[in-house]
Amino acid sequence: MLTQTASFAETNGSRVSLADTLRKRRQKLFKMIKFPVVLWSGVRSSRNFPGNKLPFRASSHFLYFAGIPLENVAIRMEPPGTLELYMDEPSLDDELWHGKSLLREEVAELIGANIAFPMSELWSRAYSSATIPVQDVYLQQQQSNMLHRWLYSASSLSWIDWELAYAIVQLRLTHDAGALAELRKAAACTVQAHRAGMAATRHVRFEAQVRAAMENVILAQQMNCAYNSIVTVHGEVLHNEQHYRAINPGDLLLVDVGAETALGWASDVTRTWPVSGKFSPTQRDIYEVVRSAHDACIAKVAPGVEYKDIHLQAATTLTYGLVQLGILKGDVEELVENDVHAAFFPHGIGHLIGLDVHDMEDLGDLSGYELGRKRSDRFGLKFLRLDRPLQSGMLVSIEPGFYQVPSLLNYPDRRETFQEFVDWDRLAQFSDVRGIRIENDVLVTDSGCEVITGELPTHPDAIEHLVNS
Amino acid sequence: MLTQTASFAETNGSRVSLADTLRKRRQKLFKMIKFPVVLWSGVRSSRNFPGNKLPFRASSHFLYFAGIPLENVAIRMEPPGTLELYMDEPSLDDELWHGKSLLREEVAELIGANIAFPMSELWSRAYSSATIPVQDVYLQQQQSNMLHRWLYSASSLSWIDWELAYAIVQLRLTHDAGALAELRKAAACTVQAHRAGMAATRHVRFEAQVRAAMENVILAQQMNCAYNSIVTVHGEVLHNEQHYRAINPGDLLLVDVGAETALGWASDVTRTWPVSGKFSPTQRDIYEVVRSAHDACIAKVAPGVEYKDIHLQAATTLTYGLVQLGILKGDVEELVENDVHAAFFPHGIGHLIGLDVHDMEDLGDLSGYELGRKRSDRFGLKFLRLDRPLQSGMLVSIEPGFYQVPSLLNYPDRRETFQEFVDWDRLAQFSDVRGIRIENDVLVTDSGCEVITGELPTHPDAIEHLVNS
Repeated sequence: MLTQTASFAETNGSRVSLADTLRKRRQKLFKMIKFPVVLWSGVRSSRNFPGNKLPFRASSHFLYFAGIPLENVAIRMEPPGTLELYMDEPSLDDELWHGKSLLREEVAELIGANIAFPMSELWSRAYSSATIPVQDVYLQQQQSNMLHRWLYSASSLSWIDWELAYAIVQLRLTHDAGALAELRKAAACTVQAHRAGMAATRHVRFEAQVRAAMENVILAQQMNCAYNSIVTVHGEVLHNEQHYRAINPGDLLLVDVGAETALGWASDVTRTWPVSGKFSPTQRDIYEVVRSAHDACIAKVAPGVEYKDIHLQAATTLTYGLVQLGILKGDVEELVENDVHAAFFPHGIGHLIGLDVHDMEDLGDLSGYELGRKRSDRFGLKFLRLDRPLQSGMLVSIEPGFYQVPSLLNYPDRRETFQEFVDWDRLAQFSDVRGIRIENDVLVTDSGCEVITGELPTHPDAIEHLVNS
Repeated sequence: MLTQTASFAETNGSRVSLADTLRKRRQKLFKMIKFPVVLWSGVRSSRNFPGNKLPFRASSHFLYFAGIPLENVAIRMEPPGTLELYMDEPSLDDELWHGKSLLREEVAELIGANIAFPMSELWSRAYSSATIPVQDVYLQQQQSNMLHRWLYSASSLSWIDWELAYAIVQLRLTHDAGALAELRKAAACTVQAHRAGMAATRHVRFEAQVRAAMENVILAQQMNCAYNSIVTVHGEVLHNEQHYRAINPGDLLLVDVGAETALGWASDVTRTWPVSGKFSPTQRDIYEVVRSAHDACIAKVAPGVEYKDIHLQAATTLTYGLVQLGILKGDVEELVENDVHAAFFPHGIGHLIGLDVHDMEDLGDLSGYELGRKRSDRFGLKFLRLDRPLQSGMLVSIEPGFYQVPSLLNYPDRRETFQEFVDWDRLAQFSDVRGIRIENDVLVTDSGCEVITGELPTHPDAIEHLVNS
């Protein structure tokens, strides 16, 4: 892993530039906080026995300041910008089984550490530092022991840990050039994966085969999946990770697949395409409603705009479209105020993207919500993951959707709530639309925004063309 | 996951046959032990934030008695064969986000449970049962709490837990018809993946692309990788999980990739092929030595034969071949007694295969070593994972190899040890051979053995043909 990541770091530019990027991040951090910080990279979990590990994913906060996915390593940073590396040297046995890896001093040079120690030294030097707990509960307990205080989870921090998390959020909310280079690489790979998925669809019989064709592209480019791929003819299930179903000509395939670079930067893209290569008239009608919502949101993205207003824009445009189709009845504004759209669009318009596909979601709403704001109780707003004014340099997803979710539409009490607003007979004519989502990764720029996954078309004719190619 | 696995279970035969298979396993278990047993399926680990999980793998001991990979579920078994299921019903929110899943009663019927409870009931009913700790340390602590005793790890059990583990080992050492059907499916998929890897090699530039082409086959068949794929031009690194290197015409590609069925049954196959489609004369010479060791071992596999003798057979045949090539000097028997072969073959000839690719390795040497036997201190034997007489129904890997490992051959003190036995000048002529391994999955039968991955050729001409196809 070390050699691999070193090699990747080199292809990203000179070694100096990685160390420089990291130095600038530390300097910015220590303009906001005045205490030392320890961050652990994390360890691998065992799959079914200790020698068979699940793939390693370094903690994103560690990655942000240490740059490369080193296993079982820690860094300690001290104001105004000192970096200490804690890492054990690989043993001869490591070399026999896992290959030559970078030595401690080589890693130190690569990431611009001022000094490097074995891991055991951390016990005497971690005390009084702030940290963010890793995801692995066992390592979290070790962190607690080393810091002499109990760490519960990254989403319930207090004292200097909360101050650290708050400062990190301010930093990671917008992306520097080093981050953007990686995010663009992830986006480009994801676009290729979707093209491969579309091209494969008419030649295969199961969801699993489309998924395989797409992940093939991602693995071949030495990247990983940023999250478990959704490739499903049951798009109404929002996080459907099942891939066993047959795909049939009348089906829509909802595909939410994103690559993550070797250094950990994510992308997140959804397209919905007809298995046959041709949308039915009803599918195309709804698809165009979702696309108009997508386009209306993108047109609105700019610095200073409230992300919640973009969500409400999606709700309004979707509702307008559904009224036009005769599925909803009444005044658009009133329908949105009554959250009727949320029966068909039961999630937020998107989220931050960065080192995590839902960036910094380990910190709970500290990342997504401006200080002082809280999640709404409203059915149409409670799933919103991001409620901040947009800033230049933020990367957000824009992902409106339309779904016919049985548990939302078919239970008698829920059905009653929407009784007066929905034309159920008209809706029944759209039974070949289970779920449609269109999702792009959108960079907020000084002048508005740039869709960094925009090379992948959203126009239904273009989608059909790619499926038939 | 539930729906998927139920669907798989159905395609494996009728629901009755799964329940029947499991019932027979319980009956056999309770001929050996007379106390109740609780087994947990396990939970998913978070990747970088709680909502982004690593893929789920159920505990193999749970799978053996519950058949399907249910998440966060437990079973309690009582002599002479009662089965209780502990499982929470999916919530409406689960349905919205993850889709419809089987209800508790449906699962109970599928696996032949006599009665089913919510998970919370387990707290009052687990007491005085034996168990095997899962891999996840956090869940392991919950197991400890529920059983009112401290569970350290599956490899250091005592009291009824040790007795349970010992009984499970006796059961899982040999495979019943249900297990064999799955193992053959995994083997067949693995053979196809290797063919795809060979066919892709001449058309791509990086290890990662060959890996992707192979995992594509596995994912497309709705299977998983049984372990992290090894696809490397540095085959001398035994567990090399890096895939970033370019593959060049003079290189050998060592490929150790195996599929695991959706129900968790593994396969484990290695082939080594020339990137150019043609072995160099030196590569072919060494390849033939490894192949002769492979063939000599297979010829020997039969009930009653000591697996350690098969390992020593590999050592002898390899040593003989290396003497013939002029790389080693001296008497074959003496060379093997001095472990000279182990400088080039520093691992055991193989291991058990079943629900785990190293079957039951979570139990330490309780699974691989006959009671009363211990690991040898000898350099040439200490890596042996299996030291038992073979029995009909066992599935083992046979995987001899030849490697030029710098850390074994190049350090002055080690070099001195082998000084008189190795012709270093002659060895230097084989510098284009970094590592070669040939591995098959071999079922011990009443009359000898059957190579269940034997459809994938080992002959160098056939390998060249597949790479050039």
